[in-house]
Amino acid sequence: MIYDFGMPAPLARVVEMLASLPGVGPKTALRLGLNLLSRPAADTVALAEALARLHEQVGFCENCGCFAEQTVCHFCNDVRRDAQTVCLVEQPVDVLMMERGHGFRGHYHVLHGRLSPVDGLGPEQLNLAALDKRVASGLKELILATSATVDGEATAHYLARRFTSSGVKITRIARGVPEGGELEYLDEHTLSRALDQRVSWDATSI
Amino acid sequence: MIYDFGMPAPLARVVEMLASLPGVGPKTALRLGLNLLSRPAADTVALAEALARLHEQVGFCENCGCFAEQTVCHFCNDVRRDAQTVCLVEQPVDVLMMERGHGFRGHYHVLHGRLSPVDGLGPEQLNLAALDKRVASGLKELILATSATVDGEATAHYLARRFTSSGVKITRIARGVPEGGELEYLDEHTLSRALDQRVSWDATSI
Ligand SMILES: [Zn+2]
Ligand SMILES: [Zn+2]
Repeated sequence: MIYDFGMPAPLARVVEMLASLPGVGPKTALRLGLNLLSRPAADTVALAEALARLHEQVGFCENCGCFAEQTVCHFCNDVRRDAQTVCLVEQPVDVLMMERGHGFRGHYHVLHGRLSPVDGLGPEQLNLAALDKRVASGLKELILATSATVDGEATAHYLARRFTSSGVKITRIARGVPEGGELEYLDEHTLSRALDQRVSWDATSI
Repeated sequence: MIYDFGMPAPLARVVEMLASLPGVGPKTALRLGLNLLSRPAADTVALAEALARLHEQVGFCENCGCFAEQTVCHFCNDVRRDAQTVCLVEQPVDVLMMERGHGFRGHYHVLHGRLSPVDGLGPEQLNLAALDKRVASGLKELILATSATVDGEATAHYLARRFTSSGVKITRIARGVPEGGELEYLDEHTLSRALDQRVSWDATSI
Protein backbone atom coordinates (compact mmCIF):
# COMPACT_ATOMS: atom_id res chain seq x y z
CA MET A 1 0.00 0.00 0.00
CA ILE A 2 1.51 3.30 -1.06
CA TYR A 3 -0.92 5.43 0.97
CA ASP A 4 0.13 4.52 4.46
CA PHE A 5 2.58 7.29 5.08
CA GLY A 6 0.89 9.99 7.05
CA MET A 7 -2.42 9.83 5.23
CA PRO A 8 -5.45 10.06 7.54
CA ALA A 9 -7.41 6.79 7.53
CA PRO A 10 -10.66 8.32 6.16
CA LEU A 11 -8.79 9.67 3.13
CA ALA A 12 -6.86 6.42 2.69
CA ARG A 13 -10.16 4.53 2.69
CA VAL A 14 -11.60 6.72 -0.08
CA VAL A 15 -8.41 6.45 -2.12
CA GLU A 16 -8.34 2.69 -1.74
CA MET A 17 -11.93 2.33 -2.90
CA LEU A 18 -11.37 4.64 -5.86
CA ALA A 19 -8.32 2.55 -6.82
CA SER A 20 -10.61 -0.48 -7.16
CA LEU A 21 -12.42 1.17 -10.08
CA PRO A 22 -11.47 -0.01 -13.58
CA GLY A 23 -8.64 1.99 -15.13
CA VAL A 24 -7.94 3.92 -11.90
CA GLY A 25 -4.42 3.26 -10.64
CA PRO A 26 -3.10 4.19 -7.18
CA LYS A 27 -1.76 7.56 -8.37
CA THR A 28 -5.00 8.57 -10.05
CA ALA A 29 -6.95 7.42 -7.00
CA LEU A 30 -4.77 9.60 -4.78
CA ARG A 31 -5.26 12.60 -7.07
CA LEU A 32 -9.03 12.09 -7.10
CA GLY A 33 -9.18 11.58 -3.33
CA LEU A 34 -7.23 14.78 -2.69
CA ASN A 35 -9.45 16.66 -5.10
CA LEU A 36 -12.58 15.38 -3.35
CA LEU A 37 -11.11 16.59 -0.07
CA SER A 38 -10.02 19.99 -1.36
CA ARG A 39 -13.21 20.92 -3.23
CA PRO A 40 -16.17 22.32 -1.26
CA ALA A 41 -17.60 19.75 1.16
CA ALA A 42 -21.06 20.17 -0.39
CA ASP A 43 -19.76 18.87 -3.76
CA THR A 44 -18.34 15.72 -2.23
CA VAL A 45 -21.44 15.15 -0.11
CA ALA A 46 -23.62 15.54 -3.24
CA LEU A 47 -21.59 12.86 -5.02
CA ALA A 48 -21.85 10.65 -1.93
CA GLU A 49 -25.63 11.00 -1.87
CA ALA A 50 -25.97 10.26 -5.58
CA LEU A 51 -23.85 7.12 -5.16
CA ALA A 52 -25.74 6.01 -2.06
CA ARG A 53 -29.02 5.96 -3.99
CA LEU A 54 -27.70 4.75 -7.35
CA HIS A 55 -28.50 1.07 -6.97
CA GLU A 56 -31.94 1.55 -5.43
CA GLN A 57 -32.95 4.11 -8.06
CA VAL A 58 -31.72 2.37 -11.19
CA GLY A 59 -32.85 -1.14 -12.08
CA PHE A 60 -33.72 -3.01 -15.25
CA CYS A 61 -36.93 -3.00 -17.28
CA GLU A 62 -38.86 -6.22 -16.70
CA ASN A 63 -39.93 -6.22 -20.33
CA CYS A 64 -36.69 -5.51 -22.20
CA GLY A 65 -33.83 -5.47 -19.68
CA CYS A 66 -32.80 -1.83 -20.33
CA PHE A 67 -31.88 0.51 -17.48
CA ALA A 68 -35.10 1.64 -15.84
CA GLU A 69 -36.17 3.83 -12.93
CA GLN A 70 -39.55 2.10 -12.77
CA THR A 71 -40.51 -1.51 -13.52
CA VAL A 72 -40.77 -0.62 -17.22
CA CYS A 73 -38.22 1.56 -19.05
CA HIS A 74 -38.96 4.75 -20.92
CA PHE A 75 -38.37 3.04 -24.29
CA CYS A 76 -41.10 0.47 -23.62
CA ASN A 77 -43.34 3.30 -22.35
CA ASP A 78 -42.77 5.54 -25.38
CA VAL A 79 -45.81 5.12 -27.65
CA ARG A 80 -44.05 7.00 -30.49
CA ARG A 81 -41.54 4.16 -30.81
CA ASP A 82 -42.22 1.08 -32.93
CA ALA A 83 -42.80 -1.84 -30.54
CA GLN A 84 -42.76 -4.31 -33.44
CA THR A 85 -39.09 -3.68 -34.26
CA VAL A 86 -36.72 -4.85 -31.55
CA CYS A 87 -32.97 -4.28 -31.51
CA LEU A 88 -31.22 -6.93 -29.43
CA VAL A 89 -28.00 -6.01 -27.63
CA GLU A 90 -25.73 -7.61 -25.07
CA GLN A 91 -25.54 -4.97 -22.33
CA PRO A 92 -27.59 -2.01 -21.07
CA VAL A 93 -24.74 0.34 -22.01
CA ASP A 94 -25.05 -0.78 -25.64
CA VAL A 95 -28.49 0.83 -25.70
CA LEU A 96 -26.95 4.16 -24.70
CA MET A 97 -24.48 3.83 -27.58
CA MET A 98 -27.26 3.00 -30.07
CA GLU A 99 -29.31 5.98 -28.89
CA ARG A 100 -26.47 8.39 -29.53
CA GLY A 101 -27.03 7.85 -33.23
CA HIS A 102 -30.61 9.15 -32.88
CA GLY A 103 -31.65 6.99 -35.84
CA PHE A 104 -33.38 4.00 -34.27
CA ARG A 105 -37.00 4.42 -33.21
CA GLY A 106 -37.89 0.84 -32.24
CA HIS A 107 -37.63 -0.98 -28.95
CA TYR A 108 -34.69 -2.83 -27.40
CA HIS A 109 -33.97 -6.14 -25.78
CA VAL A 110 -30.92 -6.55 -23.53
CA LEU A 111 -29.51 -10.07 -23.12
CA HIS A 112 -27.32 -9.10 -20.14
CA GLY A 113 -24.50 -11.15 -21.55
CA ARG A 114 -23.70 -13.36 -24.50
CA LEU A 115 -23.10 -17.05 -24.99
CA SER A 116 -19.64 -17.93 -23.80
CA PRO A 117 -18.92 -21.63 -23.41
CA VAL A 118 -15.51 -20.84 -21.94
CA ASP A 119 -17.11 -18.88 -19.10
CA GLY A 120 -19.93 -21.39 -18.73
CA LEU A 121 -22.52 -18.90 -20.02
CA GLY A 122 -25.34 -20.69 -21.85
CA PRO A 123 -28.83 -19.60 -22.93
CA GLU A 124 -30.17 -20.11 -19.38
CA GLN A 125 -27.93 -17.28 -18.14
CA LEU A 126 -29.31 -14.80 -20.67
CA ASN A 127 -32.48 -12.68 -20.57
CA LEU A 128 -34.31 -14.93 -23.05
CA ALA A 129 -37.63 -15.85 -21.39
CA ALA A 130 -38.91 -12.31 -21.83
CA LEU A 131 -37.65 -12.30 -25.43
CA ASP A 132 -39.47 -15.54 -26.23
CA LYS A 133 -42.67 -13.91 -25.00
CA ARG A 134 -42.10 -10.82 -27.13
CA VAL A 135 -41.38 -12.86 -30.25
CA ALA A 136 -44.41 -15.08 -29.61
CA SER A 137 -46.62 -11.99 -29.30
CA GLY A 138 -45.78 -11.21 -32.93
CA LEU A 139 -42.76 -9.04 -33.70
CA LYS A 140 -42.09 -7.62 -37.17
CA GLU A 141 -38.29 -7.55 -36.99
CA LEU A 142 -35.57 -8.65 -34.58
CA ILE A 143 -32.27 -6.87 -35.24
CA LEU A 144 -29.33 -8.81 -33.83
CA ALA A 145 -26.87 -6.18 -32.59
CA THR A 146 -24.62 -8.43 -30.54
CA SER A 147 -20.95 -7.54 -30.65
CA ALA A 148 -18.65 -8.30 -33.57
CA THR A 149 -16.68 -10.79 -31.47
CA VAL A 150 -16.52 -14.57 -31.73
CA ASP A 151 -18.96 -14.95 -28.83
CA GLY A 152 -21.19 -12.16 -30.12
CA GLU A 153 -21.38 -13.84 -33.54
CA ALA A 154 -22.10 -17.21 -31.96
CA THR A 155 -24.87 -15.62 -29.90
CA ALA A 156 -26.39 -14.04 -33.02
CA HIS A 157 -26.30 -17.42 -34.80
CA TYR A 158 -27.92 -19.11 -31.83
CA LEU A 159 -30.73 -16.54 -31.69
CA ALA A 160 -31.32 -16.66 -35.44
CA ARG A 161 -31.78 -20.44 -35.14
CA ARG A 162 -33.94 -20.13 -32.02
CA PHE A 163 -36.43 -17.84 -33.74
CA THR A 164 -36.15 -19.12 -37.31
CA SER A 165 -39.61 -20.71 -37.35
CA SER A 166 -41.35 -17.92 -35.42
CA GLY A 167 -42.09 -15.83 -38.50
CA VAL A 168 -40.16 -12.78 -37.22
CA LYS A 169 -37.81 -11.17 -39.74
CA ILE A 170 -34.28 -11.53 -38.38
CA THR A 171 -31.53 -9.10 -39.38
CA ARG A 172 -27.94 -8.43 -38.29
CA ILE A 173 -26.33 -4.99 -38.02
CA ALA A 174 -23.87 -4.33 -40.86
CA ARG A 175 -20.14 -4.87 -40.50
CA GLY A 176 -17.76 -2.63 -42.39
CA VAL A 177 -15.41 0.34 -42.37
CA PRO A 178 -16.19 2.61 -39.40
CA GLU A 179 -16.92 6.29 -40.00
CA GLY A 180 -13.61 8.08 -40.53
CA GLY A 181 -11.76 4.78 -40.77
CA GLU A 182 -8.61 4.85 -42.88
CA LEU A 183 -8.30 1.58 -44.81
CA GLU A 184 -4.62 1.57 -43.97
CA TYR A 185 -5.31 0.97 -40.28
CA LEU A 186 -8.16 -1.53 -40.55
CA ASP A 187 -7.71 -5.20 -39.79
CA GLU A 188 -8.05 -7.60 -42.72
CA HIS A 189 -11.30 -9.18 -41.51
CA THR A 190 -13.12 -5.87 -41.33
CA LEU A 191 -11.88 -4.93 -44.76
CA SER A 192 -12.78 -8.21 -46.49
CA ARG A 193 -16.18 -8.16 -44.76
CA ALA A 194 -16.77 -4.60 -45.95
CA LEU A 195 -15.89 -5.70 -49.47
CA ASP A 196 -18.15 -8.79 -49.33
CA GLN A 197 -21.07 -6.79 -48.02
CA ARG A 198 -20.67 -3.90 -50.47
CA VAL A 199 -23.92 -2.16 -51.42
CA SER A 200 -24.90 -0.42 -54.66
CA TRP A 201 -23.86 3.22 -54.82
CA ASP A 202 -27.46 4.46 -54.70
CA ALA A 203 -27.99 2.80 -51.34
CA THR A 204 -25.05 4.67 -49.81
CA SER A 205 -26.31 8.18 -50.57
CA ILE A 206 -28.79 8.47 -47.74
CA MET B 1 -24.29 16.45 -22.81
CA ILE B 2 -23.48 13.05 -24.27
CA TYR B 3 -25.34 11.11 -21.58
CA ASP B 4 -28.89 12.13 -22.34
CA PHE B 5 -29.89 9.28 -24.56
CA GLY B 6 -31.80 6.79 -22.53
CA MET B 7 -29.66 7.03 -19.42
CA PRO B 8 -31.66 7.07 -16.20
CA ALA B 9 -31.31 10.42 -14.43
CA PRO B 10 -29.71 8.99 -11.24
CA LEU B 11 -26.94 7.41 -13.30
CA ALA B 12 -26.54 10.53 -15.43
CA ARG B 13 -26.14 12.58 -12.25
CA VAL B 14 -23.35 10.32 -10.96
CA VAL B 15 -21.60 10.32 -14.34
CA GLU B 16 -21.80 14.10 -14.57
CA MET B 17 -20.30 14.56 -11.12
CA LEU B 18 -17.51 12.08 -11.84
CA ALA B 19 -16.74 13.96 -15.06
CA SER B 20 -16.05 17.08 -12.97
CA LEU B 21 -13.06 15.38 -11.33
CA PRO B 22 -9.61 16.32 -12.65
CA GLY B 23 -8.44 14.11 -15.52
CA VAL B 24 -11.79 12.32 -15.81
CA GLY B 25 -13.35 12.87 -19.24
CA PRO B 26 -16.95 12.06 -20.21
CA LYS B 27 -16.06 8.57 -21.46
CA THR B 28 -14.13 7.63 -18.33
CA ALA B 29 -16.93 9.04 -16.18
CA LEU B 30 -19.45 6.87 -18.03
CA ARG B 31 -17.26 3.78 -17.59
CA LEU B 32 -16.86 4.48 -13.87
CA GLY B 33 -20.57 5.18 -13.41
CA LEU B 34 -21.54 1.93 -15.13
CA ASN B 35 -19.02 0.04 -13.01
CA LEU B 36 -20.41 1.56 -9.81
CA LEU B 37 -23.86 0.45 -10.92
CA SER B 38 -22.85 -3.07 -11.93
CA ARG B 39 -20.72 -3.94 -8.88
CA PRO B 40 -22.47 -5.09 -5.68
CA ALA B 41 -24.63 -2.33 -4.20
CA ALA B 42 -22.79 -2.65 -0.88
CA ASP B 43 -19.52 -1.59 -2.53
CA THR B 44 -21.01 1.56 -3.97
CA VAL B 45 -22.80 2.40 -0.73
CA ALA B 46 -19.51 1.95 1.17
CA LEU B 47 -17.80 4.44 -1.15
CA ALA B 48 -20.75 6.80 -0.73
CA GLU B 49 -20.47 6.65 3.06
CA ALA B 50 -16.72 7.20 3.02
CA LEU B 51 -17.17 10.24 0.78
CA ALA B 52 -20.03 11.60 2.89
CA ARG B 53 -17.81 11.72 5.97
CA LEU B 54 -14.52 12.66 4.28
CA HIS B 55 -14.64 16.40 4.93
CA GLU B 56 -15.87 16.17 8.51
CA GLN B 57 -13.30 13.51 9.42
CA VAL B 58 -10.22 15.03 7.81
CA GLY B 59 -9.07 18.53 8.69
CA PHE B 60 -5.74 20.28 9.17
CA CYS B 61 -3.40 20.28 12.16
CA GLU B 62 -3.64 23.61 13.98
CA ASN B 63 0.08 23.47 14.71
CA CYS B 64 1.59 22.52 11.34
CA GLY B 65 -1.21 22.47 8.74
CA CYS B 66 -0.84 18.78 7.82
CA PHE B 67 -3.87 16.55 7.29
CA ALA B 68 -5.24 15.64 10.71
CA GLU B 69 -8.13 13.69 12.16
CA GLN B 70 -7.89 15.55 15.46
CA THR B 71 -6.86 19.15 16.15
CA VAL B 72 -3.21 18.06 16.11
CA CYS B 73 -1.75 15.68 13.50
CA HIS B 74 0.05 12.43 14.24
CA PHE B 75 3.42 13.93 13.23
CA CYS B 76 3.14 16.64 15.87
CA ASN B 77 1.96 13.99 18.35
CA ASP B 78 4.81 11.58 17.60
CA VAL B 79 7.40 11.99 20.38
CA ARG B 80 9.93 9.89 18.43
CA ARG B 81 10.16 12.60 15.78
CA ASP B 82 12.49 15.59 16.11
CA ALA B 83 10.29 18.63 16.76
CA GLN B 84 13.29 20.96 16.32
CA THR B 85 13.71 20.14 12.63
CA VAL B 86 10.85 21.36 10.48
CA CYS B 87 10.40 20.64 6.79
CA LEU B 88 8.30 23.31 5.14
CA VAL B 89 6.16 22.35 2.13
CA GLU B 90 3.46 23.99 0.06
CA GLN B 91 0.60 21.47 0.25
CA PRO B 92 -0.59 18.67 2.55
CA VAL B 93 -0.05 16.16 -0.25
CA ASP B 94 3.65 17.11 -0.34
CA VAL B 95 3.96 15.65 3.15
CA LEU B 96 2.65 12.30 1.87
CA MET B 97 5.28 12.38 -0.87
CA MET B 98 8.06 13.19 1.62
CA GLU B 99 6.96 10.38 3.93
CA ARG B 100 7.19 7.80 1.14
CA GLY B 101 10.94 8.17 1.32
CA HIS B 102 10.89 7.04 4.98
CA GLY B 103 14.05 9.08 5.63
CA PHE B 104 12.81 12.22 7.33
CA ARG B 105 12.09 12.03 11.06
CA GLY B 106 11.37 15.66 11.85
CA HIS B 107 8.15 17.66 11.83
CA TYR B 108 6.43 19.47 8.98
CA HIS B 109 4.90 22.83 8.24
CA VAL B 110 2.39 23.23 5.42
CA LEU B 111 2.03 26.69 3.88
CA HIS B 112 -1.20 25.81 2.06
CA GLY B 113 0.01 27.65 -0.99
CA ARG B 114 2.97 29.68 -2.16
CA LEU B 115 3.59 33.31 -2.98
CA SER B 116 2.08 34.08 -6.36
CA PRO B 117 1.81 37.78 -7.20
CA VAL B 118 -0.02 36.91 -10.43
CA ASP B 119 -2.79 35.17 -8.46
CA GLY B 120 -2.77 37.82 -5.74
CA LEU B 121 -1.34 35.39 -3.19
CA GLY B 122 0.82 37.20 -0.64
CA PRO B 123 2.22 36.21 2.77
CA GLU B 124 -1.17 36.95 4.43
CA GLN B 125 -2.74 34.09 2.47
CA LEU B 126 -0.21 31.54 3.71
CA ASN B 127 -0.10 29.56 6.97
CA LEU B 128 2.65 31.76 8.44
CA ALA B 129 1.37 32.92 11.85
CA ALA B 130 1.77 29.40 13.26
CA LEU B 131 5.23 29.14 11.66
CA ASP B 132 6.35 32.42 13.24
CA LYS B 133 5.35 30.99 16.60
CA ARG B 134 7.26 27.77 15.99
CA VAL B 135 10.41 29.58 14.87
CA ALA B 136 10.17 31.98 17.85
CA SER B 137 9.92 29.00 20.22
CA GLY B 138 13.42 28.02 19.07
CA LEU B 139 13.80 25.65 16.09
CA LYS B 140 17.10 24.06 15.15
CA GLU B 141 16.54 23.84 11.40
CA LEU B 142 13.94 24.95 8.87
CA ILE B 143 14.19 22.98 5.61
CA LEU B 144 12.59 24.86 2.74
CA ALA B 145 10.98 22.21 0.53
CA THR B 146 8.82 24.48 -1.60
CA SER B 147 8.53 23.42 -5.23
CA ALA B 148 11.24 23.93 -7.82
CA THR B 149 9.08 26.44 -9.68
CA VAL B 150 9.51 30.20 -10.05
CA ASP B 151 6.87 30.84 -7.37
CA GLY B 152 8.24 28.06 -5.16
CA GLU B 153 11.74 29.57 -5.37
CA ALA B 154 10.40 33.06 -4.65
CA THR B 155 8.55 31.69 -1.63
CA ALA B 156 11.73 30.01 -0.36
CA HIS B 157 13.66 33.28 -0.76
CA TYR B 158 10.94 35.21 1.06
CA LEU B 159 10.97 32.75 3.98
CA ALA B 160 14.77 32.71 4.19
CA ARG B 161 14.69 36.51 4.51
CA ARG B 162 11.77 36.46 6.98
CA PHE B 163 13.64 34.19 9.40
CA THR B 164 17.22 35.26 8.70
CA SER B 165 17.69 36.99 12.09
CA SER B 166 15.81 34.38 14.11
CA GLY B 167 18.82 32.16 14.64
CA VAL B 168 17.22 29.12 13.00
CA LYS B 169 19.40 27.27 10.49
CA ILE B 170 17.73 27.56 7.10
CA THR B 171 18.33 24.95 4.37
CA ARG B 172 16.85 24.19 0.95
CA ILE B 173 16.27 20.70 -0.46
CA ALA B 174 18.79 19.83 -3.16
CA ARG B 175 18.11 20.22 -6.85
CA GLY B 176 19.61 17.80 -9.32
CA VAL B 177 19.23 14.77 -11.51
CA PRO B 178 16.25 12.68 -10.34
CA GLU B 179 16.76 9.00 -9.51
CA GLY B 180 16.85 7.08 -12.78
CA GLY B 181 17.01 10.31 -14.78
CA GLU B 182 18.77 10.00 -18.14
CA LEU B 183 20.82 13.15 -18.79
CA GLU B 184 19.58 13.08 -22.36
CA TYR B 185 16.02 13.90 -21.31
CA LEU B 186 16.74 16.48 -18.62
CA ASP B 187 16.12 20.17 -19.14
CA GLU B 188 19.19 22.41 -19.24
CA HIS B 189 18.42 24.18 -15.95
CA THR B 190 18.26 20.95 -13.97
CA LEU B 191 21.50 19.78 -15.52
CA SER B 192 23.45 23.00 -14.95
CA ARG B 193 22.11 23.19 -11.39
CA ALA B 194 23.17 19.59 -10.76
CA LEU B 195 26.63 20.47 -12.05
CA ASP B 196 26.89 23.64 -9.94
CA GLN B 197 25.81 21.83 -6.79
CA ARG B 198 28.05 18.82 -7.33
CA VAL B 199 29.27 17.16 -4.13
CA SER B 200 32.49 15.31 -3.41
CA TRP B 201 32.42 11.62 -4.29
CA ASP B 202 32.61 10.53 -0.64
CA ALA B 203 29.40 12.36 0.17
CA THR B 204 27.47 10.48 -2.51
CA SER B 205 28.19 6.99 -1.24
CA ILE B 206 25.61 6.89 1.51
ZN1 LIG C 1 -38.07 -1.73 -21.55
ZN1 LIG D 1 0.88 18.83 12.95
